[in-house]
Amino acid sequence: MQEVKREKWGNNFSEWFRSVLNGAELYDYRYPIKGCGVWRPYGFKLRRNVLKIIRKLLDETNHHEVLLPLLIPETLLAKESEHVKGFEEQVYWVTHGGLDKLDVKLALRPTSETALAPMLKLWIKSHSDLPLKLYQVVSVFRYETKATRPLIRVREITTFKEAHTAHATLEDAERQVKEAVEVYSKFFNSLGIPYTINLRPQWDKFAGAIYTIAFDTIMPDKRVMQIGTVHNLGQNFSKAFEITYLKVDGTHDYIWQTCYGISERAIAALISIHGDDRGLIIPPSIAPIQLVIIPIPYRGFEEKVYEKSREIYEILKKAGFRVKLDDREDITPGSKFYDWELRGIPLRIEIGPKDLEEETITISRRDTLERYKYKVHEMIEKIEKLLEEVEKALKKRAKQWFKNQINRIENLEEAKRIFEEKGGILEVPWCGNDECGLKLGEKLDARVLGEALDVDKYVSKCIICGKPSTKILRLARTY
Amino acid sequence: MQEVKREKWGNNFSEWFRSVLNGAELYDYRYPIKGCGVWRPYGFKLRRNVLKIIRKLLDETNHHEVLLPLLIPETLLAKESEHVKGFEEQVYWVTHGGLDKLDVKLALRPTSETALAPMLKLWIKSHSDLPLKLYQVVSVFRYETKATRPLIRVREITTFKEAHTAHATLEDAERQVKEAVEVYSKFFNSLGIPYTINLRPQWDKFAGAIYTIAFDTIMPDKRVMQIGTVHNLGQNFSKAFEITYLKVDGTHDYIWQTCYGISERAIAALISIHGDDRGLIIPPSIAPIQLVIIPIPYRGFEEKVYEKSREIYEILKKAGFRVKLDDREDITPGSKFYDWELRGIPLRIEIGPKDLEEETITISRRDTLERYKYKVHEMIEKIEKLLEEVEKALKKRAKQWFKNQINRIENLEEAKRIFEEKGGILEVPWCGNDECGLKLGEKLDARVLGEALDVDKYVSKCIICGKPSTKILRLARTY
Repeated sequence: MQEVKREKWGNNFSEWFRSVLNGAELYDYRYPIKGCGVWRPYGFKLRRNVLKIIRKLLDETNHHEVLLPLLIPETLLAKESEHVKGFEEQVYWVTHGGLDKLDVKLALRPTSETALAPMLKLWIKSHSDLPLKLYQVVSVFRYETKATRPLIRVREITTFKEAHTAHATLEDAERQVKEAVEVYSKFFNSLGIPYTINLRPQWDKFAGAIYTIAFDTIMPDKRVMQIGTVHNLGQNFSKAFEITYLKVDGTHDYIWQTCYGISERAIAALISIHGDDRGLIIPPSIAPIQLVIIPIPYRGFEEKVYEKSREIYEILKKAGFRVKLDDREDITPGSKFYDWELRGIPLRIEIGPKDLEEETITISRRDTLERYKYKVHEMIEKIEKLLEEVEKALKKRAKQWFKNQINRIENLEEAKRIFEEKGGILEVPWCGNDECGLKLGEKLDARVLGEALDVDKYVSKCIICGKPSTKILRLARTY
Repeated sequence: MQEVKREKWGNNFSEWFRSVLNGAELYDYRYPIKGCGVWRPYGFKLRRNVLKIIRKLLDETNHHEVLLPLLIPETLLAKESEHVKGFEEQVYWVTHGGLDKLDVKLALRPTSETALAPMLKLWIKSHSDLPLKLYQVVSVFRYETKATRPLIRVREITTFKEAHTAHATLEDAERQVKEAVEVYSKFFNSLGIPYTINLRPQWDKFAGAIYTIAFDTIMPDKRVMQIGTVHNLGQNFSKAFEITYLKVDGTHDYIWQTCYGISERAIAALISIHGDDRGLIIPPSIAPIQLVIIPIPYRGFEEKVYEKSREIYEILKKAGFRVKLDDREDITPGSKFYDWELRGIPLRIEIGPKDLEEETITISRRDTLERYKYKVHEMIEKIEKLLEEVEKALKKRAKQWFKNQINRIENLEEAKRIFEEKGGILEVPWCGNDECGLKLGEKLDARVLGEALDVDKYVSKCIICGKPSTKILRLARTY
């Protein structure tokens, strides 16, 4: 058995990531504007499958998909003062239409709270219109001045799923925040992306929110990447935009709002977390191609091998697998192996002269590189099982690796040493005071991810001030 | 039986269209930028079903979906000189990122030929990379100075399906044009939208194309709307962008290109063509809701009626129908009828005390307003048949109406009179000379749609110059 290598993957991740995006023809970052890329057919199909999952989860929980305009007038964007402060340095401005200068500058949406607000004002009249749960999948734009990275820090985020909800009470908004956290948890679970859930510190919340909960994962270079956020907006926007509703008792109140988003970073994480030195490994449940059939034509058996391959292809297609027959004749089987391994197809099926003789197929697993021989008459059942195994194994490996990157330390000096050495996520006991978090972040030159929400109460002493503590604070170097 | 009225629909179409878009909650045009609207949940679902059809047709014919950036640098947009001339007065320009002025202005894509060109240059090396057939579904932007109209003439076209193909020879590009015309024909047929297919005059072709073929439909106000176009681009773009490929014989040549697009105008046509004075009528095959169940609760039977309604709902849902139970208790059945008729649900099912007694349901057809009574045990089969009938009847009615709006006239004076009186499409014998077309257009104050491509040879004399002719020229007042 060959060895599964993850050296380039872990030690030279940036290079690995770029070469995989290009080599597997997922996303082309050579477009002549910095921070803008092109989804190629194979990448687009993967993206489509990922979006199918989140749409299903949202539709099932009574969210309704809508589509809001891209352009937001400056006057609208500026109505909620914290919000505009948070975004104004990152906004692209449209100033001209044809040869005319526009009266009011138009922003390319950096996010859509302010585009939705005037519509909510029209749509929501009374308590019977609430709760209202909407979402859209669109491009959003940020004029990033930091170094950009394909899919991770871009200027056109091409795949932004943003949900916006309106509620009659704070309690219902809180319930919605919980539902959103649950939906996102299910989403990342189904992609096999491990995560931590953290309450962001006040200084790092979404511009205009009361508080922000974030999903953070760890990438192969041990840096942490935010992959989803859930915000309770309170009445900040509804007061700024005067969105009220008629209560049961006949009085009026401002609506309560939440919003939550995930982006193509989910796809970047998916690609990265399951990969190895040979390229992608896509979990079978979302793989655009689950099986690739490669004929191994020995001299004298060419036609028979191709014929058998086509026959097997038809059977597997009919059985409902997403299967591809690579019958290119000008390329060696070895080059085909390389191509499809790079693209992360979970199972490869080879059909050679021996298979003809024995009525078998030879299967190779992309994740472990293990090889199997199955009789043709039993192959459907065996393949089904094998796909399930690959799915499970990928998720298990990702989880295990992730767990190993989290270090819980109680002693400050040790925390510094371990964090410097190992990266990943540092967990420390914490009194809950923002100042202590801030201090620790500075000492470690790390970002404070915030209070861990997905752990049990942990009785200890704050790593900074020494006061009794029950909370866990998480820190990391982030993208 | 009640009468199906189409008075407001035909005589006051603009008003009808706006009130239906709003009333049925399809698309909200009250967004605070002129020419930009919001797809609401019900409209979005209809749009999703329409897009499903075109995606299926394109995927089946080996088109691959991609996603290109929204922003196009001015330098790129300007490379093909005819193209930029055609679009420069309609382009929105991004000039600032945050507080910085950009070095190069960025256009919001009016269409994506020039965004794709540098990528094709990277992707296409040799004849084995051809043909390449790509498409995307995106928003495009046109700074319209004419009066705007929701879904029909907007500044953000939110649903632009644009396909772009590359070929080794002119012949293959011509074959592709034919395939595109076939795909679009199937698409409009499946929506029940009648159309004519016309070769646009040279002065009205797509900026940068050799020629343009257009699909034109007729709206209830007898004006013609262009709903799809197919362009042969020749080597105009490939020469401007220097996109070449290696031929089998070892030499290089520029690629040949086509492109073709449809927009949300297809949805505007769908909504309009099948409507009547009560609102929408959506063909069952694409209706987000095919059946709505409305309980008719007489005093003393309330609980039993609701219970039976829920039971019927479960049965029909399980049978695979897209069914909705309207069990709102604060609204009368009459208001519910009004709501769902406006939204165009093909079949309404009423369940009252008598139905309980007789184990029946009462069905009302949205298109003819006819009513039927079916036994519960036979309802699935009956409903299936009825949905098919509605589908067929809608398509037939649309076709018949459309045919009546086309007038073929050989005499100039009569043509003038009939066109003034009836509007719609005027068909006249034509020698094929552009000058004659131009003259006639001016005389009638009509737009020349171009040469009819979907008619048999017609031997006559040109209506303008009197020379022998075999072609048909079409003219109309258009949007």
